[in-house]
Amino acid sequence: MADSKPKAAITPTRAEDFPEWYQQVVRAADLAENSEVRGCMVIKPWGYGIWENIQRQLDSMIKATGHKNAYFPLFIPLSYFEKEAAHVEGFAKECAVVTHHRLEIGPDGKMRPAPSAELTEPLVVRPTSETIIGSAFARWVQSYRDLPILINQWANVVRWEMRPRLFLRTTEFLWQEGHTAHETEQEAIEEAVQMLEVYATFVRNHLALPVYHGEKTESERFPGAVQTLCIETMVQDRKAIQAGTSHFLGQNFARSAGIKYVSRNGTEEHVWTTSWGVSTRLVGALIMTHADDDGVILPPRIAPSQVVILPITPKEETKQAVLEAAALLRDKIAAQRYADESIRVEMDERDFAGGSKNWEWIKRGVPVRIEIGPRDLPTGSAAVSRRDQPVKAKVFKPISEIVDQLPVILADIQENLYDRAKTLRDSNTVRIDSKNDFYDFFTPSNKEKPEIHGGFALAHWSGSSEVEAQIKEELKVTIRCIPFDQEVRDDRPGECVISGEPSPRRVLFAKSY
Amino acid sequence: MADSKPKAAITPTRAEDFPEWYQQVVRAADLAENSEVRGCMVIKPWGYGIWENIQRQLDSMIKATGHKNAYFPLFIPLSYFEKEAAHVEGFAKECAVVTHHRLEIGPDGKMRPAPSAELTEPLVVRPTSETIIGSAFARWVQSYRDLPILINQWANVVRWEMRPRLFLRTTEFLWQEGHTAHETEQEAIEEAVQMLEVYATFVRNHLALPVYHGEKTESERFPGAVQTLCIETMVQDRKAIQAGTSHFLGQNFARSAGIKYVSRNGTEEHVWTTSWGVSTRLVGALIMTHADDDGVILPPRIAPSQVVILPITPKEETKQAVLEAAALLRDKIAAQRYADESIRVEMDERDFAGGSKNWEWIKRGVPVRIEIGPRDLPTGSAAVSRRDQPVKAKVFKPISEIVDQLPVILADIQENLYDRAKTLRDSNTVRIDSKNDFYDFFTPSNKEKPEIHGGFALAHWSGSSEVEAQIKEELKVTIRCIPFDQEVRDDRPGECVISGEPSPRRVLFAKSY
Repeated sequence: MADSKPKAAITPTRAEDFPEWYQQVVRAADLAENSEVRGCMVIKPWGYGIWENIQRQLDSMIKATGHKNAYFPLFIPLSYFEKEAAHVEGFAKECAVVTHHRLEIGPDGKMRPAPSAELTEPLVVRPTSETIIGSAFARWVQSYRDLPILINQWANVVRWEMRPRLFLRTTEFLWQEGHTAHETEQEAIEEAVQMLEVYATFVRNHLALPVYHGEKTESERFPGAVQTLCIETMVQDRKAIQAGTSHFLGQNFARSAGIKYVSRNGTEEHVWTTSWGVSTRLVGALIMTHADDDGVILPPRIAPSQVVILPITPKEETKQAVLEAAALLRDKIAAQRYADESIRVEMDERDFAGGSKNWEWIKRGVPVRIEIGPRDLPTGSAAVSRRDQPVKAKVFKPISEIVDQLPVILADIQENLYDRAKTLRDSNTVRIDSKNDFYDFFTPSNKEKPEIHGGFALAHWSGSSEVEAQIKEELKVTIRCIPFDQEVRDDRPGECVISGEPSPRRVLFAKSY
Repeated sequence: MADSKPKAAITPTRAEDFPEWYQQVVRAADLAENSEVRGCMVIKPWGYGIWENIQRQLDSMIKATGHKNAYFPLFIPLSYFEKEAAHVEGFAKECAVVTHHRLEIGPDGKMRPAPSAELTEPLVVRPTSETIIGSAFARWVQSYRDLPILINQWANVVRWEMRPRLFLRTTEFLWQEGHTAHETEQEAIEEAVQMLEVYATFVRNHLALPVYHGEKTESERFPGAVQTLCIETMVQDRKAIQAGTSHFLGQNFARSAGIKYVSRNGTEEHVWTTSWGVSTRLVGALIMTHADDDGVILPPRIAPSQVVILPITPKEETKQAVLEAAALLRDKIAAQRYADESIRVEMDERDFAGGSKNWEWIKRGVPVRIEIGPRDLPTGSAAVSRRDQPVKAKVFKPISEIVDQLPVILADIQENLYDRAKTLRDSNTVRIDSKNDFYDFFTPSNKEKPEIHGGFALAHWSGSSEVEAQIKEELKVTIRCIPFDQEVRDDRPGECVISGEPSPRRVLFAKSY
């Protein structure tokens, strides 16, 4: 390969090795790292700052739709977990199990779980909370007057992971899980749809991720759900990432937990429940969608810092004046607002070389960098660089203009990132009508670049789970959803692209994380 | 007992049975409840709303002192935990231990931890994170330029609890834990002192709890610490509650985790670390301090709702007009600010009888209730009740005046609650100079009211841990701290109140939760 291009900050590049590029981007941006506990990550301050913004902003949307936060136990008695048969079957293989409540020194002089402190009933570390929250709802609900119950929880959950990947698949992850109980089936279905829409709005407007909405097929459904709705986004290697799910649980968990109420007619009925969640994997989706070969690019709305000021202080005699001008600029920017919040600006005064600091912020993906040095002082100007433009590009402007324009610049970056992602997705979402084309689409054309190929295929499917199993086995492709969106939905009958059997509609196929 | 007093909303009263009163207050205010998992509580929305306010407000103070949030794994490998000898010894008896990572159906047809999925090394569910965070710091620190590291984490922790009590002692609880690493001993000590002061300021100004600052004796120290600083508050049965701790850890954890750096002189040194935390037990301290025989009383700064509007709608024909006036009032109040935040106001439109709704809000401790009914409409007035005044007291005022005065009323309630608590504490903090007086002070005078007696005793102590063991055994009294505060500190030598041995100073004794 000819090396005429300027060298990028991340090695390898996306085109060279997408999965390894991802690991290196996360590392270079100081977002997270693997811990010694297999599959568990340490989320470092810059990465956690993204999660804090996701949490704060989504939380206000969840509250605005009438939900309140609460907190339920981390430990779930095995007997509770077992009550819903599909549920326990779905999660049994990935459960961390607490069996002892004390350590002691064993005969070999080493610490061990004390045999005398073995629990009579093992406790499962929550992989999700339908069962334990269901048992609380059963205590809380007596009559229709107690309904609906609209609860959300921010928590950590554990699902034992054999092939972990930072943010995208970790044994422990952070999430929010909404749990609601309703008087009628219709109301519960509307709740599940409403929360999917909240997720889609949040992910689109805050994370700049375009999504398709849809329903999962039976084999991809949440264990115990009647219906799983989802939003799916495409990242730069054209794989799908599920960015949020919302489940209509029917009366399954109400029956297994005994959540009953006296209806308006005086009869005793089971409630209808929903649950819905998004997790730290959103951070992974964000990186894989927007980052480039120089590192992360953060949408301004969720960037821990939206603007960084880099004072350039080559000489001791002008240093003080530069630092003062930089501090003044910082204060003026902090007084400006973008997206209903004060602009988050920081000044990097660390005693490192200017070039390496600049590259550090490029790799971290801060949306706007402002350099100010001794030569800018007489003109009252500074140099502005946008992370969504080539890293060498900078524009010198009067400081007052920079301060005034920043809200517009941030809005423009936010929109630009969304547009890029949508263009990538739209241009890689195709209708496919023959088995040959389907296999070609999902088979790497170049063995050296096995990861970048294909995309989203809209194709006919008869409803057969054998077909799903076959393409999963042969191509690692799954049905991401039966899409709802006008632009991709197609309910005209046809023939299954794999089996040729009659098909009621097209569904969305892709490889995924 | 003569029953001339009007009946209170909570049975029993504080004087009748303080511990049971506490349970009933928590229940009546809908703050939390026990779950089926022994020692683990469900924090209900009103209780979690208090925690959310504590979290948001304290978080901004922690960030203002230069700390950043991060997240570390829930699971700690046993071998990490073992590295610091005093640490593991201190926590071994209360550790929940994960031993398996999968469930399966056993020979009896029931779910069990899969024997084939037993972990080669058991994982401890974090009781605190010094060891796992220390191992991360060891990776992060190379030179003095990487110091200080100033990290905070909001998380759940587990310490197996044999005698649980809602909020005060639960197997799982929520907290924040700060962890820092420094170049010098002096800097680490200053950090520990600074964070204790942040806690004292927060607890005083936001939770209206007066505290004494001090240092723990060796036997009460955090396992592995060189020095444990604490703040101690007195609740209404005159027992102490530790409201926050800050530990100077010396180089103990740096040595066990290998956190080394190249110093300014080019030598390799171990860092100096601190850790500090407050937890959901603050909610328990808050209730036990401010609540009365009618239920909770919340300091306005941390009340989930500071004002509730109760529309009185006895007749269908005036209902609409009352609801409209109430909604208008709500919007005007929401536009007012108190303590740098918009006033949190809600309107209770539920279709229940007015009296029972009013009592519900009294028990929940909302600082201000405003009733507005059809007879108030012509005069444009409403009735205001303050939760820190007798529950029947209400003042009719013009609506515009109410809106204008609310910030002052809320500030007044906040101050009043603090003053009451301080008066109780000060009048029950006494100097004691003889063993007889000491035993009398801490021995219930009335066997029927065993819980309310004594208070804080400032008495001489020689430094003997035998004396500590003796009074713990005989009186359930411990040394809460060696106090720093000018008003109680007394460094004049004397004789130990128990043993008569020479004593360098007075220390603070109390029973405690």
